[in-house]
Amino acid sequence: MEGIDGVRIVGLKKVVNERGHLMEVQREDDDHFIGFGQAYITCTLPGVIKAWYRHQRQLDQIALVRGSATLALFDSRPQSPSAGRTLEWILNDDSPALVQIPPGVWHGFQARGPRAALSPAPELDRSEDQ
Amino acid sequence: MEGIDGVRIVGLKKVVNERGHLMEVQREDDDHFIGFGQAYITCTLPGVIKAWYRHQRQLDQIALVRGSATLALFDSRPQSPSAGRTLEWILNDDSPALVQIPPGVWHGFQARGPRAALSPAPELDRSEDQ
Repeated sequence: MEGIDGVRIVGLKKVVNERGHLMEVQREDDDHFIGFGQAYITCTLPGVIKAWYRHQRQLDQIALVRGSATLALFDSRPQSPSAGRTLEWILNDDSPALVQIPPGVWHGFQARGPRAALSPAPELDRSEDQ
Repeated sequence: MEGIDGVRIVGLKKVVNERGHLMEVQREDDDHFIGFGQAYITCTLPGVIKAWYRHQRQLDQIALVRGSATLALFDSRPQSPSAGRTLEWILNDDSPALVQIPPGVWHGFQARGPRAALSPAPELDRSEDQ
């Protein structure tokens, strides 16, 4: 599958033990850390679609921590090497990942399965969009 | 109830609608924002206790997003105005809050009720403790 320029999908490690689990989402010394703007939590009920979003200067990050969701991306940036390309990605709390979505890329998602999808959006370069 | 010096409990606003909910946890321009070190998610199974923790230089933040937990704090800092004081606080996803725990304060928590407690620790001033 071909990617969209600037979109990064970084696998996360969930450490599970008898007491629960712990998952590091991002550190300030990660090479993909782009600064902190805002952290929020979004809960999306089963079947619900939240779309479409596109930011002028803001980089969005999504790290699903509960449930499953289909993430859809569309690159409408005329100068982009991947202009016109669409991408679908299944997010699942069994194989967690941090997804970085650069400015200018349209994105939306739909919660899948019987459980609400719960996702922190822990760090994003906040700008005039907020 | 008397507090522990440096411990802050900041109420959070959960915006609920027919599609789910959204909750802002922290922004870079909040007056209680102390910098970003690391973001992680911790899941604690019902009844499980995670304790005790104390950091030399690191400020911990907890923002429970699912379930309920009892948070216990103990101030063993000899120079603190609240030295020797203990504090218990019930965290609940119905009345969300961001709790800031300064260096030197012992803390631990127990997940309450039938659901696992899920909490992001979205920003902390990471130091040698990590």
